Amino acid sequence: MASGSSTTNLPKAHIGNIAIKSKPSSEKTASLWKTLEEYPLDAFKLDHRLANDSISILKTGLCDFRLARDCRWPWLILVPQRADITEIFELTPLDQVMLTFETELASTALKKVTGATKINVAAIGNIVRQLHVHVVARFEGDPNWPDPIWGYGKAEAYEDAKRDQFIETMREALSS
Amino acid sequence: MASGSSTTNLPKAHIGNIAIKSKPSSEKTASLWKTLEEYPLDAFKLDHRLANDSISILKTGLCDFRLARDCRWPWLILVPQRADITEIFELTPLDQVMLTFETELASTALKKVTGATKINVAAIGNIVRQLHVHVVARFEGDPNWPDPIWGYGKAEAYEDAKRDQFIETMREALSS
Repeated sequence: MASGSSTTNLPKAHIGNIAIKSKPSSEKTASLWKTLEEYPLDAFKLDHRLANDSISILKTGLCDFRLARDCRWPWLILVPQRADITEIFELTPLDQVMLTFETELASTALKKVTGATKINVAAIGNIVRQLHVHVVARFEGDPNWPDPIWGYGKAEAYEDAKRDQFIETMREALSS
Repeated sequence: MASGSSTTNLPKAHIGNIAIKSKPSSEKTASLWKTLEEYPLDAFKLDHRLANDSISILKTGLCDFRLARDCRWPWLILVPQRADITEIFELTPLDQVMLTFETELASTALKKVTGATKINVAAIGNIVRQLHVHVVARFEGDPNWPDPIWGYGKAEAYEDAKRDQFIETMREALSS
């Protein structure tokens, strides 16, 4: 005799109802659902201040590469597209390595395009807490040299054509 | 007949003169010597300003972990022990990954010990060009909050006992 389960006489799962077969009883599926709850694919939302103060120029495996809307320094901002992350150490080890190599990509491209004296790399985030990494090309005699750029003076807007040209040049350097 | 080479009649290499056998003709050995020339094992020398302004508290696989001689902020400085490196991207990929995880170690230990609001991580180096990474514990209302610490005011010395206690606590946190 059958076990008495109410599902005993249901037709076997096929392509149209495979969800029924694998829903509550499969540990694998439960674990997958748990993973999706912990790391929802669409939960990342760019902070509105980063959205206002910079422009996306490229998206890679981890980061949104953005150009700061401030022509005083050639200045990229890398935003790891992961929800609810404030500190680098909150990223998974794999994401930390990805961030390392995407920061290297941004730094070498910026150095190549601008011929900077020094590349400054920093994750500060005292004001905007969503994790973001600054990669800035510095030159002797630039505004506030040799001190840091953050918190210094007021942003100066790019001329549209110059900004578009710089974005195009950076995109090429980041992709080559 | 032999080729006329002057080495034709020399005894074959044995354990005592194997260097003769492998010296000028072996590509492998030449490549090894080249590597040793490019990466001399003892060529790293700490910049004298870093030596003056900070104290070594621990050495790991890559970095000398140092405490800044400035009690205004709990402030570590990680110096990769590699000669002639100015930018993170000049490190080998392996050293970049090592630096990432040693920075994570410093950041989590500093967060745990101090309960900081925010950890600031930065490689600036506009003045001291030897690569060094700042890892700083920040608190709302600390000197120059929320702006960066670099270039702000004058260093304030620790009291000896407080400094020694902090170093001891950090060493424990870094080793646990």
